[in-house]
Amino acid sequence: MAALDYHAEERSKAEFDVEEMKIVWAGSRHDYEINDRVARLVASDPGMFIPAIKGQGTEEQQEKWLPMAYKMQIIGCYAQTELGHGSNVQGLETTATFDPQTDEFVIHSPTLTSSKWWPGGLGKVSTHAVVYARLITDGKDHGVHGFIVQLRSLDDHSPLPGITVGDIGMKFGSGAYNSMDNGVLRFDHVRIPRNQMLMRDSQVTREGKYMHSDVPTQLVYGTMVNVRQKIVSNASGALSRAVCIATRYSAVRRQFGSQNGGPETQVIDYRTQQSRLFPLLASAYAFRFVGEWLTWLYADVTQRLQANDFSTLSEAHACTAGLKSITTSETLDGIEECRKLCGGHGYLSSSGLPELFAVYAPNCTYEGDNIVLLLQVARFLMKTFSQLGSGKKPVGTTAYMGRAEHLMQCCCEVERAEDWLKPSVILEAFEARAARMSVSCATNLSKFSNPEEGFAELSADLVEAAVAHCQLIVVSKFVEKLQQDIPGKGVKRQLEILCNVYALYLLHKHLGDFVTTGCITPKQGALANEQLRLLYSQVRPNAIALVDAFNYTDHYLGSDLGCYDGNVYQKLYEGAWKDPLNDTDVPDGYHEYIRPILKQHIRTARL
Amino acid sequence: MAALDYHAEERSKAEFDVEEMKIVWAGSRHDYEINDRVARLVASDPGMFIPAIKGQGTEEQQEKWLPMAYKMQIIGCYAQTELGHGSNVQGLETTATFDPQTDEFVIHSPTLTSSKWWPGGLGKVSTHAVVYARLITDGKDHGVHGFIVQLRSLDDHSPLPGITVGDIGMKFGSGAYNSMDNGVLRFDHVRIPRNQMLMRDSQVTREGKYMHSDVPTQLVYGTMVNVRQKIVSNASGALSRAVCIATRYSAVRRQFGSQNGGPETQVIDYRTQQSRLFPLLASAYAFRFVGEWLTWLYADVTQRLQANDFSTLSEAHACTAGLKSITTSETLDGIEECRKLCGGHGYLSSSGLPELFAVYAPNCTYEGDNIVLLLQVARFLMKTFSQLGSGKKPVGTTAYMGRAEHLMQCCCEVERAEDWLKPSVILEAFEARAARMSVSCATNLSKFSNPEEGFAELSADLVEAAVAHCQLIVVSKFVEKLQQDIPGKGVKRQLEILCNVYALYLLHKHLGDFVTTGCITPKQGALANEQLRLLYSQVRPNAIALVDAFNYTDHYLGSDLGCYDGNVYQKLYEGAWKDPLNDTDVPDGYHEYIRPILKQHIRTARL
Repeated sequence: MAALDYHAEERSKAEFDVEEMKIVWAGSRHDYEINDRVARLVASDPGMFIPAIKGQGTEEQQEKWLPMAYKMQIIGCYAQTELGHGSNVQGLETTATFDPQTDEFVIHSPTLTSSKWWPGGLGKVSTHAVVYARLITDGKDHGVHGFIVQLRSLDDHSPLPGITVGDIGMKFGSGAYNSMDNGVLRFDHVRIPRNQMLMRDSQVTREGKYMHSDVPTQLVYGTMVNVRQKIVSNASGALSRAVCIATRYSAVRRQFGSQNGGPETQVIDYRTQQSRLFPLLASAYAFRFVGEWLTWLYADVTQRLQANDFSTLSEAHACTAGLKSITTSETLDGIEECRKLCGGHGYLSSSGLPELFAVYAPNCTYEGDNIVLLLQVARFLMKTFSQLGSGKKPVGTTAYMGRAEHLMQCCCEVERAEDWLKPSVILEAFEARAARMSVSCATNLSKFSNPEEGFAELSADLVEAAVAHCQLIVVSKFVEKLQQDIPGKGVKRQLEILCNVYALYLLHKHLGDFVTTGCITPKQGALANEQLRLLYSQVRPNAIALVDAFNYTDHYLGSDLGCYDGNVYQKLYEGAWKDPLNDTDVPDGYHEYIRPILKQHIRTARL
Repeated sequence: MAALDYHAEERSKAEFDVEEMKIVWAGSRHDYEINDRVARLVASDPGMFIPAIKGQGTEEQQEKWLPMAYKMQIIGCYAQTELGHGSNVQGLETTATFDPQTDEFVIHSPTLTSSKWWPGGLGKVSTHAVVYARLITDGKDHGVHGFIVQLRSLDDHSPLPGITVGDIGMKFGSGAYNSMDNGVLRFDHVRIPRNQMLMRDSQVTREGKYMHSDVPTQLVYGTMVNVRQKIVSNASGALSRAVCIATRYSAVRRQFGSQNGGPETQVIDYRTQQSRLFPLLASAYAFRFVGEWLTWLYADVTQRLQANDFSTLSEAHACTAGLKSITTSETLDGIEECRKLCGGHGYLSSSGLPELFAVYAPNCTYEGDNIVLLLQVARFLMKTFSQLGSGKKPVGTTAYMGRAEHLMQCCCEVERAEDWLKPSVILEAFEARAARMSVSCATNLSKFSNPEEGFAELSADLVEAAVAHCQLIVVSKFVEKLQQDIPGKGVKRQLEILCNVYALYLLHKHLGDFVTTGCITPKQGALANEQLRLLYSQVRPNAIALVDAFNYTDHYLGSDLGCYDGNVYQKLYEGAWKDPLNDTDVPDGYHEYIRPILKQHIRTARL
């Protein structure tokens, strides 16, 4: 009984080699074999204390602090965000004032809103922090710099004088993120030696003179590219978990449609379920491949930076910013949609979906709020367009803008539904849409005498243009992936289907963009929708195998609904009895609360 | 300091009488004065045990059971949903087999999936349940009926023989819904007397003969109309809470845009924030008024039923089903959007938003899954259209279909952005869109030889047509509200602005629908968007006052970010120190876990 596979019939329907697909999903046979999940988990630890000292400390500082941190003689955290200040680092209020009398900095929180708020590991665990504060020498504000500050005694862990430190309280969800020690921290004139300012790029001398080395800000961009490409990879990881759960349960769950007392219809056979679920399945694969490409992009950028070649950096920066934004937003929405696709049982903690949602949610806010990032992309797009006339050739993901003249007047050639299966047709439609939306924004911007005012006024339209650009990137990287040699029976064919699902789903969702810009006609939009329905039928028999290819163990998935063998109801039922509430048949509180009511022993005066 | 109102300047900008708006929001001066919140809370208790006996029991059964339930000598729950069966009541598996030997029913759970699962109050508290089970007499299955079954001893609360009962475990969120005693229940041949079947509509005689009174199924529709109109009212309640929190915090929070070291820009002044927040503010008002209208509709339906007039019932049923679906879906998405609009702090439990989301989520699933409901609406629309030729006049919210011929060929007359402010222009555009999408579905359906197959195949399109119809209802009821006399300086003017925001936001969101059906041109779509931006500017100075008009106390809102006086950071900061983790400076576990690491007393072998 325990060995029965409720999905066996589903698995037998698959039209491709699932073992080969696992390798495609993993990225390579090597990745597949070493199963780098544990390595990735360790690598994603948020202790940015060490990287900050590595990146911004002098060699002397690195020699002093890093060994202690590595040996965990001290525990450090990264204290940047303040109660009143998030993404805008230049708005931080904490001050570090140099006192030439004693050769020290005085770290101080002048206002309530300057309290450090959110840093991970700060509240209860850390003994030291890299604190970001405004550097002030001789009454002059030099902007935000990093300082190493000891917070707690190494003898008894009590907070040092002038330090107020604690936990910020409960957060979304019932589990994982609440075990993160997010902290609050205030300084009351805390003194640190001058040599605890991170001085690789800027220095304060013994006399209090401020000196700034001219390090290209581009290097900061390089770090952001790295962090954000990791976030995109995590997006496909989180979305694929949710999709795996929802797909497997949709094949188990039956509702309505019973014929002559036979079993009800599998929920996954309903068109309404398919039209919500399969685009998410396709998105998981799409994000996987664009994440893979970003890993390459980061390696390329790093190599160029080492050769002092900054030519692709701003394009790479805009590209990762935009992809971070759209993949995390769509992943969060997708996890929630998967929860809804599981009906009432998706609401159970044992489905794994509520906690997956709560834990994933911060991705849309940290490392750049998603809307702020899209505005950065839009700014880059407007700049790129304005430079087209001057002959500057757009590179990388903006190369299509070099063909703007063609894209402004090209006509989509689709006449029959199957014409929408051609990658060239899809790419041109997405390129034309992105180009025309950008051009429309640029035209409207030019009507403002003050460009910044225009940018603010039109920002909602600019965000939409940036989304169109980023979606083009994801679609085009999926198409590029399919130009590679992909072995395994039927594997490439399945990926082609998913690529088309992803593109045509986006086209349907943003039909207004495509039609109002004249990239496609209403008739062609209807044909795309018709083709999409046919594609769903092709995904259907392979759906279970396509999520099996993610190769997640039941332990990793952590979901009764998503278990590999599909024995969902048994697991839910058995799981319920493990709840502590069920330790006794007669509940705690029966004698205190329930019995007096039933036996009318409560004072009626209180009724 | 404590009495300082951080929103005072915002409130002084309001261009209308907020006290009068509070009355409009409350529904009437009477409602405003009695503040019926507590009454509504009590009324929304999910104990459907008593209504079931009232609705389906004979007079004799009501006389026996209701007094005990009212006096709480027994505590009852409503056990319908099973582990494997949700919305489809006809799919339930629990059996109630009549045994003529003993004049009893044998209640039994033949499979794991027939376990009752979810009923509120079942797991630990209830002594009795109304259990829905398949009635079987003499080997014949008569479908699902209700039975009163005792679950626990009235002496010591222990489960009776043959009864297995418990709690189903943790659910989404960290608070409210987890305190709901959702239960699991199995029967092993439990015997109950024959007179515990609810026999108002169907009876089993002493000899085991089954008799069915021909009660019009329409009466069941009447109950559904009632439950669902309450859910729509609750939607405006939940959405307005989230909007109130996000709006107030958006006026407090500042980010970027600092000029010469001055304060940063209030987040609410950004167009990107306005274009996400203000449509939700408008939606809260729109749902409020459509909910108000539904209350009237239910009273009207009830009156007609009493006079045996069933002519409007199916239209009213479809209308409430559809409105339940779109208002709850948009409210849940809206709460989550409000959380994101609060940046990182929206993730804190003390923002109130995570729990509001988790507690609201089940609304999209219970009392009819939202997609299933939209398919019911679509079925009703197709039926209404098919009967147009036969001269049957569509009533109520479908009356516009009587003008289908006109709506199929009318042209939108908008030439300038301000033309979009005319209610007649907006209504015709929404009517034409809904009619054309329905006609398009009907045309495509007619191509299938098997209508049911066609309905299944095209269900995703049908859902979109149903959404278009339901959005038309909400828009038209908002417009109708504005035809009433609304006193108070500037009050009606604000509502006109919000009505236009709501309609034009929907038009922009579903631009593809409007343009591909030829209801409006791309140019007219761009003009609508232009007008929308102007409307946002008009909402801006009134935003705080418009959420003040909801008249929520800080206690009811339960959000540090949404507090009336706007002293957000003080409240967050003080709140953090109340967290039990902060009871001690040196955390629990320091000596056990942290100190050994810092002091290197851990066995290096384990590193």
